[in-house]
Amino acid sequence: MKIGLIGLGKMGFNLSQNLTDNNYEVVAFDVNANAVKELQSHGAQGAASLEQLAGALETPRIIWIMVPHSVVDNVLGDITPFLSEGDIVIEAGNSHYKESIRRYNQLRTLGIHFMDAGTSGGMEGARHGACYMVGGDPEAWQIVEPIFRDTSVPNGYLYAGKAGSGHYLKMVHNGIEYGMMASIGEGFEVLEKSGFDFDYEQVAKVWNHGSVIRSWLMELTQRSFSKDAKLDEIKGIMQSSGEGKWTVQEAMDLQAATPVIAMSLLMRYRSLDEDTFTGKVVAALRNEFGGHAIEKVKMTD
Amino acid sequence: MKIGLIGLGKMGFNLSQNLTDNNYEVVAFDVNANAVKELQSHGAQGAASLEQLAGALETPRIIWIMVPHSVVDNVLGDITPFLSEGDIVIEAGNSHYKESIRRYNQLRTLGIHFMDAGTSGGMEGARHGACYMVGGDPEAWQIVEPIFRDTSVPNGYLYAGKAGSGHYLKMVHNGIEYGMMASIGEGFEVLEKSGFDFDYEQVAKVWNHGSVIRSWLMELTQRSFSKDAKLDEIKGIMQSSGEGKWTVQEAMDLQAATPVIAMSLLMRYRSLDEDTFTGKVVAALRNEFGGHAIEKVKMTD
Repeated sequence: MKIGLIGLGKMGFNLSQNLTDNNYEVVAFDVNANAVKELQSHGAQGAASLEQLAGALETPRIIWIMVPHSVVDNVLGDITPFLSEGDIVIEAGNSHYKESIRRYNQLRTLGIHFMDAGTSGGMEGARHGACYMVGGDPEAWQIVEPIFRDTSVPNGYLYAGKAGSGHYLKMVHNGIEYGMMASIGEGFEVLEKSGFDFDYEQVAKVWNHGSVIRSWLMELTQRSFSKDAKLDEIKGIMQSSGEGKWTVQEAMDLQAATPVIAMSLLMRYRSLDEDTFTGKVVAALRNEFGGHAIEKVKMTD
Repeated sequence: MKIGLIGLGKMGFNLSQNLTDNNYEVVAFDVNANAVKELQSHGAQGAASLEQLAGALETPRIIWIMVPHSVVDNVLGDITPFLSEGDIVIEAGNSHYKESIRRYNQLRTLGIHFMDAGTSGGMEGARHGACYMVGGDPEAWQIVEPIFRDTSVPNGYLYAGKAGSGHYLKMVHNGIEYGMMASIGEGFEVLEKSGFDFDYEQVAKVWNHGSVIRSWLMELTQRSFSKDAKLDEIKGIMQSSGEGKWTVQEAMDLQAATPVIAMSLLMRYRSLDEDTFTGKVVAALRNEFGGHAIEKVKMTD
């Protein structure tokens, strides 16, 4: 089976090798021509343009898009003119599920199937076996299911239902991930302030062997501490890339009480600021009503 | 090696069989004589009293206590008169680490070693391989290490350091567990309110195969949904047995910011109340300032 792959970032590049390992023929395009060239040396066919990519595929075409969610619409706009009725577009990035429903409806007017595939498992997963949650038309699913089966870990894919359901599950998966990661982080925060002299790598290791909280995230915790016993080299700045926020926004829309996930998101935001305006206001108020000392900012000339 | 086992609840009973499987001779006592009798048919020696139990062991005695934390002091008070210098008492229940430090110091004045062993993995773990975090004197650890090695999963035990460190790690482990469980619960809360028609068993299953949030807790989630697809038979009342609260109290004492774990604890408390006084107050205030409708309690005659 021949697959058109658009987007050769960390995930797309690894997926391409995964596909090739599983005897798929990959025709790849990326705005970065060097990435295409490098992939060609790994057994893929390169395409110099989206038109060339579409031309190199038999119909019904199967196009796998793995690009940042901000450029998905551009890619769809650019490739659609070269697609035909019955073609299947798989969008395997981290798009908002409402965008995926919109894209599904847009492409449906052209007779093109759009599938939203949430992908988990990180770079290692993309390379050696990912976890997929897929939404879209059942008749398109029939055709593409083998691709998901072959490039996932055993049992690592789910046809979740109608359009949007794949990215919805991925969104909530990431929300859960935010809360789990914050819980692990806070646990080690307590250990670090405890006055006991724990070896965190050993702690994470024992927690990965028979405990209730054994998990892949705890394995990654163990791995992190094995590289840097106290994480001295890492600043505690917690960036986020959207899906935790979307989960909380969705929960607000649904009036679903999700304070733990919401708090884990808000604490990520807190970590971005060295100081907070909240803190200034509260310190000022304590000073105003109780004369409590405030710490002055050192002004430089 | 002969071990005195006190406490034949769900954990102690399973541990006894685990010990017997590993060729330890178990002398068991429980306030419930029937439990002792049942265990005798599983290869253990029964004791009718703590005195008899102590008398049946060679010195240095190894006594394993697995009772609710509220009765640990009683058990220690009752058995200590029959113990000698050099004996080793392992307290493998869920005690507060400060209590364990106090008990360690009390027994040390008698020359008796006290070890605090946090135990995770639930009933299955006690039976087939637990996860242990152990604090206490290194010279006592030398003697008892084989017991922990033999009854844990491979790599499932850690000598954590000085007295109290074992129960400290178990406390924080449970705090992390609270946060992880709340995150999982909240994720499914969103799915349930989403309007999509997800099969939760299948969702949990795919998340256990290759995703970032794969974990034993997610496996238990899958198992739960396999028994009851929407958990219709279970009320959402979240009891707690102390260690989550202790983690948060400890975090307060350390001024360690752990809002996610704290929130997971508070939401357990919220689940215990059908209605809240908070809710009444806020509804009353909205009514007072904005004339917003309130829902009246139906008074019965």
